[in-house]
Amino acid sequence: MQYIAGGVCAPKGFKAAGVHCGIRKNRTKYDLALIVSDEMAAAAAVYTQNLVKGAPILVTKEHLADGYARAVIVNSGNANTCNANGIEIAKGMCALVREHTGIDEKDVAVASTGVIGQPLSLQPIADGMEKLVNALSYDGSVDAANAIMTTDTLLKQFAVEFMMDGVVCTIGGIAKGSGMIHPNMATMLSFITTDCAISPEMLQEALKEDIVESFNMVSVDGDTSTNDMVMIMANGLAGNSPITKKNADYATFRSALRMITQMLSRAIAKDGEGATKLIVSKTVGAKNVETARTVAKAVICSNLFKAAMFGADANWGRVLCAIGYSGADVDVNKIDVTFSSEMGKLPVCMNGAGVPFDEDEAKKVLSANEVNVLVDLCDGECEATAWGCDLTYDYVKINGDYRT
Amino acid sequence: MQYIAGGVCAPKGFKAAGVHCGIRKNRTKYDLALIVSDEMAAAAAVYTQNLVKGAPILVTKEHLADGYARAVIVNSGNANTCNANGIEIAKGMCALVREHTGIDEKDVAVASTGVIGQPLSLQPIADGMEKLVNALSYDGSVDAANAIMTTDTLLKQFAVEFMMDGVVCTIGGIAKGSGMIHPNMATMLSFITTDCAISPEMLQEALKEDIVESFNMVSVDGDTSTNDMVMIMANGLAGNSPITKKNADYATFRSALRMITQMLSRAIAKDGEGATKLIVSKTVGAKNVETARTVAKAVICSNLFKAAMFGADANWGRVLCAIGYSGADVDVNKIDVTFSSEMGKLPVCMNGAGVPFDEDEAKKVLSANEVNVLVDLCDGECEATAWGCDLTYDYVKINGDYRT
Repeated sequence: MQYIAGGVCAPKGFKAAGVHCGIRKNRTKYDLALIVSDEMAAAAAVYTQNLVKGAPILVTKEHLADGYARAVIVNSGNANTCNANGIEIAKGMCALVREHTGIDEKDVAVASTGVIGQPLSLQPIADGMEKLVNALSYDGSVDAANAIMTTDTLLKQFAVEFMMDGVVCTIGGIAKGSGMIHPNMATMLSFITTDCAISPEMLQEALKEDIVESFNMVSVDGDTSTNDMVMIMANGLAGNSPITKKNADYATFRSALRMITQMLSRAIAKDGEGATKLIVSKTVGAKNVETARTVAKAVICSNLFKAAMFGADANWGRVLCAIGYSGADVDVNKIDVTFSSEMGKLPVCMNGAGVPFDEDEAKKVLSANEVNVLVDLCDGECEATAWGCDLTYDYVKINGDYRT
Repeated sequence: MQYIAGGVCAPKGFKAAGVHCGIRKNRTKYDLALIVSDEMAAAAAVYTQNLVKGAPILVTKEHLADGYARAVIVNSGNANTCNANGIEIAKGMCALVREHTGIDEKDVAVASTGVIGQPLSLQPIADGMEKLVNALSYDGSVDAANAIMTTDTLLKQFAVEFMMDGVVCTIGGIAKGSGMIHPNMATMLSFITTDCAISPEMLQEALKEDIVESFNMVSVDGDTSTNDMVMIMANGLAGNSPITKKNADYATFRSALRMITQMLSRAIAKDGEGATKLIVSKTVGAKNVETARTVAKAVICSNLFKAAMFGADANWGRVLCAIGYSGADVDVNKIDVTFSSEMGKLPVCMNGAGVPFDEDEAKKVLSANEVNVLVDLCDGECEATAWGCDLTYDYVKINGDYRT
């Protein structure tokens, strides 16, 4: 099992494209993406748990109800959420895909990301469709990944190759962050493709199991978006015997999927709005996995701790504070905390109380662009990892003036 | 019932003092406060729900168990939390009050605020006690309020005078913010005094009922402190017949108490770390008060919305988004949102969808230093108010380098 170059076009039989159609005023920023499978694909998705749901979420749910899809169309620059005619527009986007590709609109998923509550016109999308469909290619993943970006600064795509049933299978994915990102629900937009043969039921199950330890363990700012969606299409072109139950092949598929989703999750956290560093929060020694997840997430969700990380300040008391209000059932007098990075390792708290450390050494360790926070609850064998980022001036700047 | 000048010394028979004793290096910043009642007082308190609790919390709980107290000693600059000898130090502070005033240490409450996990030495406090006790005066509220401040920029004290049972009663209070402030628990430090006669049981009940709609409706940054405490002492010197049950006098007392706690809550939110404006989030038309509170708090807790307020950006989609993930059971298609301030009134959303507005007008309304966000759920008769502030560069600056 190994990472290879590429994203959603790495698996066999998937084309993608990204273009500028005019939803955004900036003509150099792509705003419309299309991913198409050559063959009908098993399809699964998880969606935001926010009560306020973007119209595309509702339309995609309907279109994926039968477990199959061939394409997904995505725009950035407008969330198509809280608009009176949102459903009509989302369905219109699917109809445009049918008109230009012949794919039944019931086999088309749709997603939108951007400002909430501004009317979205179908006109620029209709105008851009011919260019978009003409641009579809087996090399189009980068363009599609670019087109779904909003405040993201880094393109996010990964692919993994693995052997199954004597054939080479591939999973690839793209994602966008980078604000309104919070764990505990399906977060952000991510589109994953695979040429592995797998039934719709097993595909949905694999995705549902996976997000608990990947996308749901990411937080940038504690705000859960209205338009989050993670979607996966599996077209079976690798030629393996289809996975229809939880056997060894299913386990292999889950492992490969996790390699993609955890890298995308890390990438989303690292590229969080305004972030200067990735924070990897690992909790070990928990009595159960729920406790480990709750603690790991509480640490990366604390504004105070995130601001301390921006300032490379080893303020471990904020880690203890966050664990204390997380609701997790822990013995605070057993907790050990260690900060580490490529610059070194720094134990700061043992048995719930501070241990002396060198402040210069602490600054050095915390000035790296990836910082690990290890919390040992010393209370069991379970562990979990969450990904977050620091809270910076630029987060405030980006969000003080996002819409206008 | 009316506001009058003063704080904890406004009621009869309360002295207070604040001095610099040396816990803080900055000799111009007071770091030690004492409030003393001339007579034994009924006493009640509510404490942080954080599992990680400062040692002073544990000692105060023990000392207030009998429902009476005469004094509270408070230091800033060090939270005395996550220290191996914390309990010993907190008890030592109470013993110092006994040595210098003769008040039984079991009648002394203690509180600490500042950095978590740094050892606190009793030495500067012992050295400062004589100066502190000598400074006790019926004019000392401002000094005490100064001494408990950490990153606060504004002194917070209020007093209310009211008639009860034919006599003049007074309630006064001081508080400190301004980071690690989050609703849903007893938050921050606040000390309230009254000369009203009321039983310990009714005093605890009044406080418990009050915080749900005052301190628990404040959020600055979503982090619940380890050292939060709201304490009230009632020495009965006003001469009213003691309140011992929930009668009309109790209702009067509750109203007066609310006048103090809601003003302190507003002041804490307005002076939130780095804040440039107070945000008053009012939710009306809710089917029950829990829903109203959940929605009002979700709005002022959203980092994205708070950053938009800093930028005076009328990004109402973030209000809807926050309501959507709050867990409140609401019909998103019924929600109306209106922004207002002394500069005007701006409806931005009706029935869950946007209404056109003038961007220049919006900038004007949102540039005031107090902004109201009115959410009408159009689903009932209940309402609630929460207080918060914007998220600014300075919040990040203050917390990127608080400890070092």
